[in-house]
Amino acid sequence: MYEPGLIPLSFLPENKEFPMSVLATRITPNSLFFLRTHAPYPEHIHLQRWRLTVKGCVRRTIRLKYEDLCALPHSTLPVTLECAGNKRVFFEPKTQGIQWGIGGISHATWTGVPLRLVLEMAGILPHASEVLFEGMDIGPRTDLPGSFSYCRSLPLEKAFHPDTMLAMYMNAEVLPFKHGFPVRLIVPGWYGMASVKWLRRIIVLDHSFQGPFQSRDYVLLEQPNDYSNAVPVTRMQVNSVIARPIDRDVLRRGQHEIYGVAWTGTTPLKVVEVSTDGGETWYQADWVDEEEQYSWRRWRLNWNVLIPGEYTIMARATDGLGNSQPSKTAWNVKGYMNNSIHTVHVYVE
Amino acid sequence: MYEPGLIPLSFLPENKEFPMSVLATRITPNSLFFLRTHAPYPEHIHLQRWRLTVKGCVRRTIRLKYEDLCALPHSTLPVTLECAGNKRVFFEPKTQGIQWGIGGISHATWTGVPLRLVLEMAGILPHASEVLFEGMDIGPRTDLPGSFSYCRSLPLEKAFHPDTMLAMYMNAEVLPFKHGFPVRLIVPGWYGMASVKWLRRIIVLDHSFQGPFQSRDYVLLEQPNDYSNAVPVTRMQVNSVIARPIDRDVLRRGQHEIYGVAWTGTTPLKVVEVSTDGGETWYQADWVDEEEQYSWRRWRLNWNVLIPGEYTIMARATDGLGNSQPSKTAWNVKGYMNNSIHTVHVYVE
Repeated sequence: MYEPGLIPLSFLPENKEFPMSVLATRITPNSLFFLRTHAPYPEHIHLQRWRLTVKGCVRRTIRLKYEDLCALPHSTLPVTLECAGNKRVFFEPKTQGIQWGIGGISHATWTGVPLRLVLEMAGILPHASEVLFEGMDIGPRTDLPGSFSYCRSLPLEKAFHPDTMLAMYMNAEVLPFKHGFPVRLIVPGWYGMASVKWLRRIIVLDHSFQGPFQSRDYVLLEQPNDYSNAVPVTRMQVNSVIARPIDRDVLRRGQHEIYGVAWTGTTPLKVVEVSTDGGETWYQADWVDEEEQYSWRRWRLNWNVLIPGEYTIMARATDGLGNSQPSKTAWNVKGYMNNSIHTVHVYVE
Repeated sequence: MYEPGLIPLSFLPENKEFPMSVLATRITPNSLFFLRTHAPYPEHIHLQRWRLTVKGCVRRTIRLKYEDLCALPHSTLPVTLECAGNKRVFFEPKTQGIQWGIGGISHATWTGVPLRLVLEMAGILPHASEVLFEGMDIGPRTDLPGSFSYCRSLPLEKAFHPDTMLAMYMNAEVLPFKHGFPVRLIVPGWYGMASVKWLRRIIVLDHSFQGPFQSRDYVLLEQPNDYSNAVPVTRMQVNSVIARPIDRDVLRRGQHEIYGVAWTGTTPLKVVEVSTDGGETWYQADWVDEEEQYSWRRWRLNWNVLIPGEYTIMARATDGLGNSQPSKTAWNVKGYMNNSIHTVHVYVE
């Protein structure tokens, strides 16, 4: 009877977030996995005519059919994807861009061909320096005339990392169209902008790619238009959010569970601490999930509250290097990488 | 390909708002009409066994079958329904309750039996003073032990108003289950809490009803728990919102349309004015829709913007009595009736 659904943020292009308040299983069902698109969806894809071309600084250009990719060795890996703009809504002052709340993140198990197998089939030449991925999604931008297909590059070391994958299945289903059918890139540990959907071309470059989705978007800017000092967005920061209770919830006195997820880009998570008094005192939460290299982990804490009033609940994750979420992430012009401590206010009656 | 959907705010009970950013037709499609529920949905309704009972201070208790209501004269009326908590998210300081944005409002054409026909069938006794409506939705509250069915009363004059209706159809479809099948009340001009869904009993009272959805919720409180000075929420205030552009949108230089809706409870709307400079100068918007007594009206204004930068767009409606939307609605504890001027910030590149 109840139908949790994606939370719409924009429609053309379509951007919707995961309804974090209904977090249940570690795996996000495909129907609730957040949608981040930069352009209208590609036109109908004729799978018989579709080819994945690998060219550029390679020994031989190759054109792979869908069946070719099906026939190559597959691997399977659970990977959490987070939009670089997740939690943007909490920046003060506000920044431009889609106002993602806490649901620009989801978790799935991806199955596909390790990217390096395909790169090795083409044969990388010695002067190669980057690998460029081009999607079939094309659209206008507000800042530049013309149309742009969504393109992003990776340094060679990340492209050749054994976990970087050409994904064809998502949670054991054929990759859904809106998530990049027939094939998308999965770049574990990096923000989602790297995981290009609807792949059609992989181009090995001997220079640094400067397309607008690489050099104008997904960079940290302290000052507007200060692109000479731009820092690229890559690995996910240590982060966590409270799924329940939800902000402004009204609770009865008694026993409640504080429940959420935590994640990080590379080093493992160490601890999640929870405060119910606005940060005065902190309690260690229990892990619901085992550690997995690229996976968010659910956590929980029992809370027995007997005195009516307003409470400020906070959650703070710390990673293995000792990095903790800040109370306020350093502001940047385009509002990326917000990992500030998530705070919810509840009323106990 | 794109699927606008309701924006989920809570799941148990289910509350979802209309995605105002996709406002198109004056009529809201049933699938996008906002959902406001106070309790779990009623159990499966056996229409053969269902009866609408009218009792209390009446000459004769009557029990109407669905077919009886089908056989009575029907009328049809377009009515905009707005949740009393619509725009709650804009209160500062924040208030408890579901954080409705600008989509706790929708518009439909309702068809059903004028309530007074049914009241006249039962025959109101002289000492009657109110009419109570009881829904089939039952659930717990956070502030009181036990379970409560959703009950609200109307003064006799509103109950006997020729436009107050027992609605059985919504936009020419059989009333959808989530909107109150088989029969719901429609109280034109009042906030939506009055339009009780899933009706099962109508009880004519000789006293003032004091149930929690009447006397604890849907009242204006200046101080917490100051129920002795509570003012009931009834008629909708003059109000408007900007549907497009959306907040934090990034626009190209050139021609744009500012587009939205305005509404009011009783007296007709007079004008909507729009500012693009944060309220320094105002321009009169054009009406898209004709005047209709209980219907919101879409409005629009062309905006030709040539200079890049950040702009603050505001819309302000004024009704026939000269009431204009305030820049800030008087704060109340439970966050009702927010009709403050809607403001969106956009970036022009």
